[in-house]
Amino acid sequence: MRKVIFIGAGNVSTSLASAFSNAGWSIVQVYSRTIDSAATLAKLYNSNAISNLSEIERFADLYIIAVPDSSISEIIDSIPIVNGVVVHTSGSTPLSVLSTLKSKGIGVFYPFQTFSRSRIVDLCNVPIFVEAGSDDVLNFLTAVGKELSHNVSYLNSEKRLLLHLSGVFASNFTNHILALTYRLATENGIDFKVLQPLVEETVVKAFTTNPKDVQTGPAIRNDIVTMEKHSAVLGNLDEQLQRIYNELSLSIQKLGKL
Amino acid sequence: MRKVIFIGAGNVSTSLASAFSNAGWSIVQVYSRTIDSAATLAKLYNSNAISNLSEIERFADLYIIAVPDSSISEIIDSIPIVNGVVVHTSGSTPLSVLSTLKSKGIGVFYPFQTFSRSRIVDLCNVPIFVEAGSDDVLNFLTAVGKELSHNVSYLNSEKRLLLHLSGVFASNFTNHILALTYRLATENGIDFKVLQPLVEETVVKAFTTNPKDVQTGPAIRNDIVTMEKHSAVLGNLDEQLQRIYNELSLSIQKLGKL
Repeated sequence: MRKVIFIGAGNVSTSLASAFSNAGWSIVQVYSRTIDSAATLAKLYNSNAISNLSEIERFADLYIIAVPDSSISEIIDSIPIVNGVVVHTSGSTPLSVLSTLKSKGIGVFYPFQTFSRSRIVDLCNVPIFVEAGSDDVLNFLTAVGKELSHNVSYLNSEKRLLLHLSGVFASNFTNHILALTYRLATENGIDFKVLQPLVEETVVKAFTTNPKDVQTGPAIRNDIVTMEKHSAVLGNLDEQLQRIYNELSLSIQKLGKL
Repeated sequence: MRKVIFIGAGNVSTSLASAFSNAGWSIVQVYSRTIDSAATLAKLYNSNAISNLSEIERFADLYIIAVPDSSISEIIDSIPIVNGVVVHTSGSTPLSVLSTLKSKGIGVFYPFQTFSRSRIVDLCNVPIFVEAGSDDVLNFLTAVGKELSHNVSYLNSEKRLLLHLSGVFASNFTNHILALTYRLATENGIDFKVLQPLVEETVVKAFTTNPKDVQTGPAIRNDIVTMEKHSAVLGNLDEQLQRIYNELSLSIQKLGKL
């Protein structure tokens, strides 16, 4: 049975561990700075929790670093010599940060999805982007990726950063727009759920074409009367919402002219 | 057979006409300022195209005004006395604009969805919000709504404006964020389609909870290094994108603290 070790027990590890386990891998260890976090994930897969990287087993096939980007270099400095492939899962961190590692190989294994601990994501349709320090490791990571998803491809560090940035817009900003909408709706006695068919249709439509071509709403129509009504309502409720409304309306009009 | 007349032949009329026709209504006339637009929609339903409101038939059951908000008052001034119920379909226009009309009844029939001419929307799950000048007309419009959708409810003009504003955030702004993403991705050789599973997961997750509670990404983690990398990339590409990135990142952090 192939062995994988998770370094980090957060959102990404939670979904990846499920996918690796389903694909027949043994999750031999889960590391986290706090042993309780490691134990929460480890116990789901009959795995060992550790909170000290010196305890890491040296002969796993794959070591997956899935920690906040800001902690990656600290983790790398603490990993002993291991006899397997070490990857990180970060969109915005180049492969080169791993180059000081003494391991069988280094790489990047980037599942392009938004992960939360409370919700395990099926990786089957999730694009996985790989990069590696050698062709052998690249082939290995591609094969591993294909066990989890039918969409695995190579992407270099520079393009991965641009993809990550695109993901921040498409996912983090979309989620935030919805979080602002949630507040606007619920604080005014409107059930947020009523917006679901609208948002679903918006997303389906956006991916049938260039979303620019199906823009609707007052800004693209230059319907100044409606925009002024909206702005007046927002001015009474929340100045930051009003600023975002004005900035995005302006941006809709500008993109519409391109 | 009950008769409906569409005043306006754009995005909203296109989807509503399909729904009314499926529900067994006869679409007797379609009005548009330009006869070609009226004819395009009319010919789908064996209906008459008109471009002069004086030609409107006086004995339809329902007259649906579906024109840009800025044209509603002009339309109202040109409608002759008719012996049916006249409604508008606008989220941001109060019922009271119809009060000068000499008709059997006035009301609002607001399907809460984003409509494009190129894509007919099934109204079955779309919330329809009604308002009327009398209880009789309200009951009539509620019954008509239920022929098209299983989600029909009353909403007054003031709350409808707030709902419409919520819809602008959830749909128009989300679509625009995706349009900006499309540009960012495709201009850098990234296939926009690769973002679809990410956006779909984001939306599904947002509606299982308060989206604020599942915010991911560098801003909510206060990951300054990643945000600076992103900002640097954007600074080289597009200053307006960079401004939107900074404004929305700030807003994510602010909402996260509430």
